Amino acid sequence: MGAEDEGLSSQGPERPKLLAAAPAAARIVEVGPRDGLQNEATTLPAAARIAFVEALADAGLSHVEAASFVSPKRVPQMEGAEEVFRGLREREGVTYTALVPNETGLERALGAGARSIAVFTAASESFNRKNLGQSIPESLETIRKVADRARREGVALRGYISMAFVCPFEGRIDPPAVMPVISGLRDAGIAGISLGDTLGAAYPDGVSRLLEAIGERFGLEGFALHLHDTYRRALANALTGLIHGIEEYDASAGGLGGCPFAPGARGNVATEELVDFFEGMGITTGVDAGKVREAAEAVREALGGS
Amino acid sequence: MGAEDEGLSSQGPERPKLLAAAPAAARIVEVGPRDGLQNEATTLPAAARIAFVEALADAGLSHVEAASFVSPKRVPQMEGAEEVFRGLREREGVTYTALVPNETGLERALGAGARSIAVFTAASESFNRKNLGQSIPESLETIRKVADRARREGVALRGYISMAFVCPFEGRIDPPAVMPVISGLRDAGIAGISLGDTLGAAYPDGVSRLLEAIGERFGLEGFALHLHDTYRRALANALTGLIHGIEEYDASAGGLGGCPFAPGARGNVATEELVDFFEGMGITTGVDAGKVREAAEAVREALGGS
Repeated sequence: MGAEDEGLSSQGPERPKLLAAAPAAARIVEVGPRDGLQNEATTLPAAARIAFVEALADAGLSHVEAASFVSPKRVPQMEGAEEVFRGLREREGVTYTALVPNETGLERALGAGARSIAVFTAASESFNRKNLGQSIPESLETIRKVADRARREGVALRGYISMAFVCPFEGRIDPPAVMPVISGLRDAGIAGISLGDTLGAAYPDGVSRLLEAIGERFGLEGFALHLHDTYRRALANALTGLIHGIEEYDASAGGLGGCPFAPGARGNVATEELVDFFEGMGITTGVDAGKVREAAEAVREALGGS
Repeated sequence: MGAEDEGLSSQGPERPKLLAAAPAAARIVEVGPRDGLQNEATTLPAAARIAFVEALADAGLSHVEAASFVSPKRVPQMEGAEEVFRGLREREGVTYTALVPNETGLERALGAGARSIAVFTAASESFNRKNLGQSIPESLETIRKVADRARREGVALRGYISMAFVCPFEGRIDPPAVMPVISGLRDAGIAGISLGDTLGAAYPDGVSRLLEAIGERFGLEGFALHLHDTYRRALANALTGLIHGIEEYDASAGGLGGCPFAPGARGNVATEELVDFFEGMGITTGVDAGKVREAAEAVREALGGS
């Protein structure tokens, strides 16, 4: 009655109604080298970061956010982003993305050979002002300029909306507050939009409410979930995404990016856990979770952590 | 746009379609003093276990499985179950349950004043034989005898089905294998049945597949989920239960019951995490998660762990 060759997978002969709308395959966008490392206390040299990115590509990850071109004064962990991008070996079917905050960052990224760009704003006015020093409309204006120039260069574009569910200053963010931010990104020509539970504080009901609203207004094509696992709700939130048919999920190898001063605190959802979660339900990812674990262990060692 | 008085809860003004069938209130059955403690390396004296159970009742838990009347030779952690039951203060609205493996255990439990009894079998033939030394039909026959006698005494009855999703020996357990076990328990007059993901190895698709099958055959009234968090999928599996309308969930304060030789290994889903998860989505539990955390910390200290 069991299926011993499948080990402990519960993947059954047929899909339950619960997952009727779930994709057959999920795409993982690996953000460990950027969102993960920028939240670690130690700054790794470019060579170690290149090795990390290469190991992740070796593990089957087709989309890796490799660095951000922000001010090294503000984010010292991302110093030498040019060196990282110049050092990466081009591979068929693998996209390395550069996060850029503005036109200056974009020029640096283009100069280093980046062919895929990510931009970011937030759904919370307070967070935008405190974190980016801009209102939401101002940040969307910056993004429009970056996107126009990027498009002229023929590079791919992706947009992040931070605090799309919960904000540390404003509490719950309701869907009506997120819609104009989505519209702004789409008006700037950005079709791929990642909805960020930046604090890991969202619950499945909030995730579902936003996806429902987006589905009605825009359709869910092109939308991704960016989940953190602070309160261990990331997999439940990912399940919610699957039920709604979301295909793309950001994740960080080893769950990198937890608070550096709180050992055990969890950052982004761990790539290997998300891969196990999806594959166990028969949703393919093309990623080797074991190799991701090895890559994460190597980088943890380089960081000097446990 | 936020709701500051609600803190970081994402509980919104209206429930998303995802949770259309979810209950307004969930019942938590606390199993820490039994399923939790019996898997810890240290045996606590009865007085400490009584204090633990009382603290859990103080936290608002209306159902606490307080001890099991198994052979102390086999499970030394449960030695002195009589003393535990005799020492518990009766409270309006609080049920203390005794787990019993057979008629001998039942007599001991009745003698100690237990008024609520839980029995157990498994959906895996191999596990039943290796763990209980009985086939499934034999264990159901034992249960029938226990249930008959318990009913004559007017005590409440609950049944556990271990390995209802995945078995260490048989791999995946498909719903058709679980149905006759459910029928056997129901034929014995047991309406409350807890479906056990004893290994924590189930995935939401497997949980959903079983609940779908049970719903079609029996209706889901009276069924509970008993989740372990070994691979951190317990909350995703609990979400699956909510979506299907399941009202009752077993949990263990502090996630007690992880393997004693693997620090950090997780046992039952932690009561306080499950309470936070439900309450954050507006599903009430009547339980104070903070008090559960305190109770768990006190017992961890008594266990000499960290």
